[in-house]
Formats: sequence, C-alpha cells, structure tokens
Amino acid sequence: MEVRIPKRTLAEGLSILERIIPSRSSNPILTYLPIELSEQGLILRGTNGEVDIEVKLPAEVQGLGQVLIPAQTFAQIVRSAPGEMVELVFGQGERLELHSGAFSTQLATTSPDGYPMLAFAAPGAERIVAARLAQAITRVRYAASTEEYRAIFRGVQLEMSPTSLRAVASDGYRLAYYDLPMQLQSRKLVIPARSADEIVRVFKDTQGEVALVVGEGTLTLVGEAVRMSVKLMEGEFPDYARVIPQTFVLEATLQAEALRESLRRVAVLSDRNNHRVNLLFNDGKLDIDAEGDYGRGREELQVEATGEPQLMVAYNAQYLIDALTPIEGAVRIKLSGPTSPSLVQAVEDAGYLAVVVPLRV
Amino acid sequence: MEVRIPKRTLAEGLSILERIIPSRSSNPILTYLPIELSEQGLILRGTNGEVDIEVKLPAEVQGLGQVLIPAQTFAQIVRSAPGEMVELVFGQGERLELHSGAFSTQLATTSPDGYPMLAFAAPGAERIVAARLAQAITRVRYAASTEEYRAIFRGVQLEMSPTSLRAVASDGYRLAYYDLPMQLQSRKLVIPARSADEIVRVFKDTQGEVALVVGEGTLTLVGEAVRMSVKLMEGEFPDYARVIPQTFVLEATLQAEALRESLRRVAVLSDRNNHRVNLLFNDGKLDIDAEGDYGRGREELQVEATGEPQLMVAYNAQYLIDALTPIEGAVRIKLSGPTSPSLVQAVEDAGYLAVVVPLRV
Repeated sequence: MEVRIPKRTLAEGLSILERIIPSRSSNPILTYLPIELSEQGLILRGTNGEVDIEVKLPAEVQGLGQVLIPAQTFAQIVRSAPGEMVELVFGQGERLELHSGAFSTQLATTSPDGYPMLAFAAPGAERIVAARLAQAITRVRYAASTEEYRAIFRGVQLEMSPTSLRAVASDGYRLAYYDLPMQLQSRKLVIPARSADEIVRVFKDTQGEVALVVGEGTLTLVGEAVRMSVKLMEGEFPDYARVIPQTFVLEATLQAEALRESLRRVAVLSDRNNHRVNLLFNDGKLDIDAEGDYGRGREELQVEATGEPQLMVAYNAQYLIDALTPIEGAVRIKLSGPTSPSLVQAVEDAGYLAVVVPLRV
Repeated sequence: MEVRIPKRTLAEGLSILERIIPSRSSNPILTYLPIELSEQGLILRGTNGEVDIEVKLPAEVQGLGQVLIPAQTFAQIVRSAPGEMVELVFGQGERLELHSGAFSTQLATTSPDGYPMLAFAAPGAERIVAARLAQAITRVRYAASTEEYRAIFRGVQLEMSPTSLRAVASDGYRLAYYDLPMQLQSRKLVIPARSADEIVRVFKDTQGEVALVVGEGTLTLVGEAVRMSVKLMEGEFPDYARVIPQTFVLEATLQAEALRESLRRVAVLSDRNNHRVNLLFNDGKLDIDAEGDYGRGREELQVEATGEPQLMVAYNAQYLIDALTPIEGAVRIKLSGPTSPSLVQAVEDAGYLAVVVPLRV
C-alpha cells in the first residue's frame, strides 16, 4: 500500500479532523486516525463521540486497506514536512514510512479492529448551501446557555419547514433566531452547541450545497469531500413565541456598530455584577450611562425614534452587545416597555431577530 | 487642573505601564496609577515592586498636582475613547472627568498619600543604545533557568567592562552570552529574568541612547520619555568560563534555519522525556534522527565540516533549537567530543555564543 499526495492537501484534510480527534481519551483508540486507501483516494476519519467526520482526499493510491496511526503525531509530522509532496508507504509489520524531501520517518501503525464504526447516512434529496447553514448558526450561537440546568438550552435548535430553516438559541434570559428561506420537510432538532461550532468550522468556507440527512438521533451533512455526522440532543425548546412581544411603545433605529462601541465604552464603568447600562430614549437622542465602584460613564447618540417621546430602559450591557454583534449596518430596537422584552433586529437582514429582557429598574 | 492630550499619546504611555501595574495586589494602592500634572507635561508612574517605570507625555497642562486613579479602568476607558483628543478635568471632591468626543465619564480619584516613592537615579555619563541592550538580552534570555534552586540562574547577568557589555544567561545545563563592544565601567549585575523582559518590552523600539545608572541594588535606565528602575538580584553567576571548551575535534558549518527546521521535524518523534536527537556528522553530511514510542524520524543535511571524519553526538532537541534561534544565516557548531560541551556560534555575528551539553550516549 502506497500513497502520494500533496502535503498541502493532506495537511488541510488533517486540520478538519484534528480538532475533534481527542489528544487523550479514556478510550485511547479514539486518539488514532483511521486512514483508508480506497479507489476514491485517501479517506481519513475521526470522532469525539459526539461528532463523526470523514474526509476524502484526492491522491495517487496503490493498494487498498486501512490502518490506524497516532493522529496528533502524524499531523505534526505532516505539517512540518519539508517537501511539496508526501509519500506514505505502508509496510509489513505495522509500519508506516513517510517520505518528504530529505526527511523520512517510520511510524508504528495499529490494526483498525476495535475502532468504532462511523456510520454516515446516505445522502437523500434535501440539500442546503453549507456556508448559509454555518452563517445561520454563527449568528445565534452566542445566545446558547452554558449553565448545567435546562440542558436543552445548551443546544442550537434547527427548525425546518416547507418555507424556512430557522436556527434558534436561548439561555432563558435572551433569545436569537435566524431564518433562511428554504423548502424542507417539517421537523425540529437540537444540536449541542459545541457540535454546532464544529459544523461552522468545517462548512463555513465550503462552496456549494451539502445533503442534509436526519437519522435516528443524528444529523448528517454530506458534502463533496467531507461527511459529518452529529449526535442530536433529546427534546426540543419550550415554546418561545410567547416571549416575543408583538406590540411596541417605542421603535428606534441607529447604526449597530456605533451603538456597540458606545456600550463597550460606557460599560467599562458599569457594576461588575450585572453590567447594568441605562438607555434613555429622549426626543431623537439616546443617552447611555452606567455607574459602578470607580465612577460613571455617559455618552449620547442620535437615533430615529417613533412612539413614546421618552423612555428609560436598562440592560446587561454584554447581552445587548451580543445581540448587536451579528448586525451590519442599521439596527432597529423595538421596546415593549421598560421591563418587558425588547426586540433587536437588523434593518438590512430580515432573517435575524434577538430578544433581550431588560433589567429591573 | 486640566489636561488635553491626543488619545494615542496617552494610550501608548499607558500601555508601557499597564503590564507592570498589578491588577490585584495585597497592597491595593499599587493597582492605582499616579498621574502628575507638571510643567513638563503629564507624568505617569507605576511599579510592581521589582520594576518602577515613569513615562513623561507631552500634553497641554493647566495647573499642577498629583492624584491616583484606578489604573486598569482608566486604561480601558482611554483605549475605547471615541475622539482623537482626551480631556481630563480634575475637579473638587476627588473626581476626574474624562471627555472624548460625545463620550464622558467621571472617575473617582484618590490622594497620592501612601503611594510608594519611586526613586529614579539621576542620569550619569554612561550611555547605551537602548535597542542594542534589549537585543543582547533577547538573544540570551532563553537560557535562563525557571527552577527554584540556584536562584541566581533565574536572572540575566550583565557584565560591563571598558571593552564590552555582555549579557549572559544559564540554567546550569546550557549557557548563552552576547557581547556588545562598548566602553563601560567594570561591574557585574544580575537582573531577574522577568524584569529583563520588561526592559526588552519597553526599550526594544526606542530610538537613541539611554543613560545607565547603577545604584544601591538597582539599575536605572533613563531615556527621553521613559525612566525605568529595576531591582537587582544579590550575588553573581559562578565562573562559567571553565565550561566553555577551547579545543575542538570537529567544526561544522551550515544554515541555522535549515538545521532548526530539521530538528523540529525529527524531534516530533523523539522520546517525550528527554527529547533526544542523535546527530551523526559523517563525511560532509549530517544525519539527524530520533526515536520514540510512536516511531522514528530521520533527515540528512549537507554540512561543511573539518576535523574528525565521523562523530555522533546527542542533544535535547529543544536545547539545540533554542541555541540556534537567535542566529540568522550560517551557524558554526564546534564539538569538543561526544559527551563534552559543544559551542554554537553565529558565523555572521561574533557577539553570540551558546554552550550546549550533549546527552550521554
């Protein structure tokens, strides 16, 4: 068995797998990389128990078979290989020789027996633009919970319907969703937030579509070169529609970045426990202020506002900054009152909506 | 009391101080920034008990006086200030107002009573190019010890004489020195390695000379805008000249970077405890190999060698890589035998010398 492959191709393939293959594990076989020589080229796989990934790399292959090699060591060696090409020669006696330029190594390999079967569903008819899915997840990910209780909120919910795919995250105090117009079969699934991060990492720069297959407790994404299978969480989010206000007493529009920057400055002086900032909407102006142990910060911004001439509302500055972060250009803030939930929407992107609950006055 | 100063000038001044002013301290007053309005401009100071720094900034100043302000909060606010200028107004009742663009804050200030006196020696006649001193320290710093025992090796020794300034560091297993030709009064002093890092950080990009004043247990560097005083360690290095070999059985010359890269590649497979790599000098070739739990790595380089036709020597790969790191261009390695110390020298920079002790075969 022999492989010839450009160093860069191999290194890129390994970089997709490296983050999920554990460097230490109670099941040490998971720290190995299953490497398969097939008629389709070189196939690399890996799993962390939650996410399975398979990467197919074009390569000149002689002979067919599969072995395990220590993943981290192999990746380090490939990255530092001096030549443009890497040659792998799988010899007798569980030995792999790697040659690149003047450099060569021998690595101990292991039989693939005992490595868990990674099952990737066969692609069905449903397809989705990979980078768009990654984008939708990225925009709401911040709102997912990191707390132990209400474990379902540690996931990102994907809601598919004949009109859209919606990514939703919430920690019970805030909520964000992002809608992609799309025609899919109706269902809801919740992906652990960390696995959602892996989907983003692997597919955010992927060109074109991937097939989307929902199986028994798994979501599989099948791309040209990469297949990825993610374990789903059990259950679904409680009905969140009722926390989204429908009527508003004040609507204000301003530039999201200017507001973010102001909040960051003023929040430096906010109370270190609740990061409280006060927003006073007053006759076309927004007055932001915060006060803590060290003093007081204040800044004034221009806004376009309709509704009540004057309204004071307080937020955890970080929550409001988070809600603004996915927004480019203008933001519309819709207040339903000083203590009831506020909406944060992107003026130029109808897909995004965030709900932030004000702090009590 | 009022100050007008470009935001950038103030932020740069603060960045010099920020790293040494502790964010927490058993003596909380050290977390404050003493800020003085003087006829020379704005003067900022700070200390971590080991290193004292004073920075003088050109500013429009009205009124004279000194207050303490919470250093970290102030620095954060200045960095995020929206305007090009920052205005500081020191009011009655221990209050500082900061204005920048549409943003303003009020910060609580404290009386400077109780803040330790920072004494900076008056500049004498001895001067040194600041960036060159920083360079000399940088080139040997890696060799300083991090171990608790033989505490003196946790410092960088500066040896001044009528012909040179030498920076030396050692951990007892290796040694590096760097000589700057220079005319100074003869003396030796040892700077704690961490304080040496601060000297590098503050002066590495400084144009021109600084005055160099050795006082009672302190070294003071006096530049145009910055004064820095560093506590010295007691004692000096044991005589290291005797570990530097004078006769050699083999001398080899090759490109430092190529050797570094080879060592890094081959060392991936080295034993994880001693990072052992074997170097076989053999008839114009250098064969580098290492073997560990996962396999074996090997690479061959061309060298120009004189002396013994063949010699095998083993090193801790990291130690040899460290010794090569300050070298640009070609390196000359001089072997005094397979188990006695080796010299590593830069062919194009006579100032640098490192001693690395081989591992036992």
